Amino acid sequence: YAKLSKMSENGVLSRAKVLTIDTMNPTVKKVEYAVRGPIVLRAVELERELSEGMKKPFSEVIKANIGDAHAMGQQPITFFRQVLALCSYPELLNDSTFPEDAKSRARRILQSCGGNSMGSYTASQGIDSVRQDVARYIERRDGGVPCDPDDIYLTTGASDGIVTMLKLLVCGEGATRTGVMISIPQYPLYSAALAELGAVQINYYLNEEKCWSMDISELQRALDEARRHCNPRALCVINPGNPTGQVQSRQCIEDVIRFAANERLLLMADEVYQDNVYAEGCQFHSFKKVLFEMGPEYSDTVELVSFHSTSKCYMGECGFRGGYMEIINMDDEVKAQLTKLVSVRLCPPVPGQALMDLVVNPPQPGEPSHDNFIKERTATLSALAEKAKLTEQVLNTIQGISCNPVQGAMYSFPRITIPEKAIQEAMEPDMFYCMKMLEETGICLVPGSGFGQTDGTYHFRMTILPPTDKLTILLNKVKEFHQKFTQQYS
Amino acid sequence: YAKLSKMSENGVLSRAKVLTIDTMNPTVKKVEYAVRGPIVLRAVELERELSEGMKKPFSEVIKANIGDAHAMGQQPITFFRQVLALCSYPELLNDSTFPEDAKSRARRILQSCGGNSMGSYTASQGIDSVRQDVARYIERRDGGVPCDPDDIYLTTGASDGIVTMLKLLVCGEGATRTGVMISIPQYPLYSAALAELGAVQINYYLNEEKCWSMDISELQRALDEARRHCNPRALCVINPGNPTGQVQSRQCIEDVIRFAANERLLLMADEVYQDNVYAEGCQFHSFKKVLFEMGPEYSDTVELVSFHSTSKCYMGECGFRGGYMEIINMDDEVKAQLTKLVSVRLCPPVPGQALMDLVVNPPQPGEPSHDNFIKERTATLSALAEKAKLTEQVLNTIQGISCNPVQGAMYSFPRITIPEKAIQEAMEPDMFYCMKMLEETGICLVPGSGFGQTDGTYHFRMTILPPTDKLTILLNKVKEFHQKFTQQYS
Repeated sequence: YAKLSKMSENGVLSRAKVLTIDTMNPTVKKVEYAVRGPIVLRAVELERELSEGMKKPFSEVIKANIGDAHAMGQQPITFFRQVLALCSYPELLNDSTFPEDAKSRARRILQSCGGNSMGSYTASQGIDSVRQDVARYIERRDGGVPCDPDDIYLTTGASDGIVTMLKLLVCGEGATRTGVMISIPQYPLYSAALAELGAVQINYYLNEEKCWSMDISELQRALDEARRHCNPRALCVINPGNPTGQVQSRQCIEDVIRFAANERLLLMADEVYQDNVYAEGCQFHSFKKVLFEMGPEYSDTVELVSFHSTSKCYMGECGFRGGYMEIINMDDEVKAQLTKLVSVRLCPPVPGQALMDLVVNPPQPGEPSHDNFIKERTATLSALAEKAKLTEQVLNTIQGISCNPVQGAMYSFPRITIPEKAIQEAMEPDMFYCMKMLEETGICLVPGSGFGQTDGTYHFRMTILPPTDKLTILLNKVKEFHQKFTQQYS
Repeated sequence: YAKLSKMSENGVLSRAKVLTIDTMNPTVKKVEYAVRGPIVLRAVELERELSEGMKKPFSEVIKANIGDAHAMGQQPITFFRQVLALCSYPELLNDSTFPEDAKSRARRILQSCGGNSMGSYTASQGIDSVRQDVARYIERRDGGVPCDPDDIYLTTGASDGIVTMLKLLVCGEGATRTGVMISIPQYPLYSAALAELGAVQINYYLNEEKCWSMDISELQRALDEARRHCNPRALCVINPGNPTGQVQSRQCIEDVIRFAANERLLLMADEVYQDNVYAEGCQFHSFKKVLFEMGPEYSDTVELVSFHSTSKCYMGECGFRGGYMEIINMDDEVKAQLTKLVSVRLCPPVPGQALMDLVVNPPQPGEPSHDNFIKERTATLSALAEKAKLTEQVLNTIQGISCNPVQGAMYSFPRITIPEKAIQEAMEPDMFYCMKMLEETGICLVPGSGFGQTDGTYHFRMTILPPTDKLTILLNKVKEFHQKFTQQYS
């Protein structure tokens, strides 16, 4: 080993660093995460510059880059926050201004906590009573398909669960290295986690012409090609889709399950947008429900993990990092290993567990908070449905932009025509396009390249979360910018 | 690839599982985590059996296995919980029963949150204003040594930060694989994380005869041996110590820093017990402060990462999963990679970030909550100091048990004499001892083997957290059990 050291100009001994870009974990270097990439860093800079009085061609930065509902002005559900306040400071249980159902919910959560405090560690898998509530929620959602609380693992947001499951799966070297199928476009957590774990990313393309649906023939193509150089073991599906906003049909889900069963792939269903369905004729079908409707040949054998979180839907509580995963047909020994693995991090954050409990067990008819809860939830979901429609409509009025219906989730992923001259000028044409839009209009979007797209096509992801008035301004600015950009490079 | 399938007895096609113990990630299988291991699982079972009315030789299970203060009855700091309630449900800002300083603190935190909501994602590195408060806290703590908020990363408990740093470090294969030096006994997060990352664990032994201090000659021995088969790159120190409860002297820390500098090791200082110092003549010295007192030859070059959390000290808020790490002298490119890496998980839980802010910026003299805060903090720390002394004293009255002073942290790690007959009977003598104690007395301790110990010696880790009356009962039961056990196997 070398003790590298040298005298610097001021005579101080300077040692070469232990940890440099050349001597750090190479898999970490391969990680990319567009949702918080260079465009977003520049947006933060621009906000600072604006606040320092610097002149810009816009008066505010509008962030439509991330599904962060509260940051865009969406209000939290009153009942949820009342219960969290009661759990944080139980003195408030004596406060007569809090509704009784909020108090009884808080008491139940606190009784499940060591020393009746959210400050205690919980079981690594999550609080028992919360997992029971999650199981009952899933049973109701799936029309009575049974759910065992022992198959529920509470997580630190859905991301944590997804990374944990991928970690369990990865093994082998070279041609036997674990491969995982992910959609393109994808949510970049998947590619980032696979890069970090050194697993092989297997891309299957969603069909943009058919509203970002999944084609079994495309899955088969991707799988057959991948089998030449790795060991494909899992198939990830995001439904409703991120970044593409589609809602998969029941038939499609059944086909995918059959494909996974035939090809011996573990299924990972990212279902965090399960309440975000807007388009007429569309409906959320959980992978679990469809699996069980397909009969024991499938429901007794297909390994399925489904993820949910407190961050999306009508609650949008990203900051609390609450979530759960349900594991179905997992080998008992592997499950024991999973339980051991999650125990190393001790437990998911307790306020997030409490919030997850409220999401799966909201106020019931007859309880004092029920009407207001329904009112708030409906208002949020209706506003999102309206904004989904508005986004699609306005984008499709722009020549050179075409946008599939935003059937669900919180995103549009329109295809944009970039003039040949701009393509030749830029290394990454859609990054160039989005960065220019940010500098000229203050609108922060994420280029399609951050999610993956068919070669030679360009997109951006835009959330539908800004308030309607701001969204209208944003869409008009996009229109103006696109026209100007097209003109400039034609 | 093989499509393994067979007909089961009821005629249903049964497919071999994708994910089995033989086909899962082999590094995950190597992970061990004694703090939540078989003894703790059995303790939970016993609690259930008791609650179901099953007869046991004890009426309650006393858990002294984990540093979970609130679960053992420690009360949260009122001010912290008031602010958290205000942040959770900002309607309470209009409630006149909350003190003004709690309100102004809550307002400041909310103003730093997108949409003034804890439900928003924060910057991946953590909320700016919280990182500023952390930096000022560190400067005060270290007598004015400067701290840059850009070097602070908020984390999901300290565990998250430690795993992230280790992840950055790991590279190479075979004889160039990254090795990391950890103390024996150690906190098993370290061994678990190293196993999961496939890094080489390099054991250096603490000197039990000298109150678990660090010997440079032992560090040198461990390092020299390790260099024959791996590439040692980091040295981890836990001070005050877990599981051993020692507080390292300033001289020792200086020697360790010089050793790390000479040997080009990155230093990881786990300082989560920085307020838990009880013994007379002992004082907490942060690695950073000592580093800077050693002059620019060291302070300009030695790479140091220090970890803190909301889970220990006088607050004991484990469930909120708050924490931070400070990185010192980290290469800029590596720092950019770290920032990218943490962005994949979006952000640490916001309630934990808020709590970390309160810990580093508690009520100041003159503010309405100051006196009560000081009263509560002092009461908790005095009680811990008393229990540290009580534990040491009673354990040392037992023939066959010898216990170093519990100078700090929350644990005693006494050495126990196990009769030869018991050693021959059991696979793991201290596991056998602890399991027998649990079954006979209801006391849940963790065997020393879960933390590592010199071959042929046996220990257990016991927290000092139970309330004084319960701790007295517990210690007397340990005494009784040990005498009986010794008799039985002599």
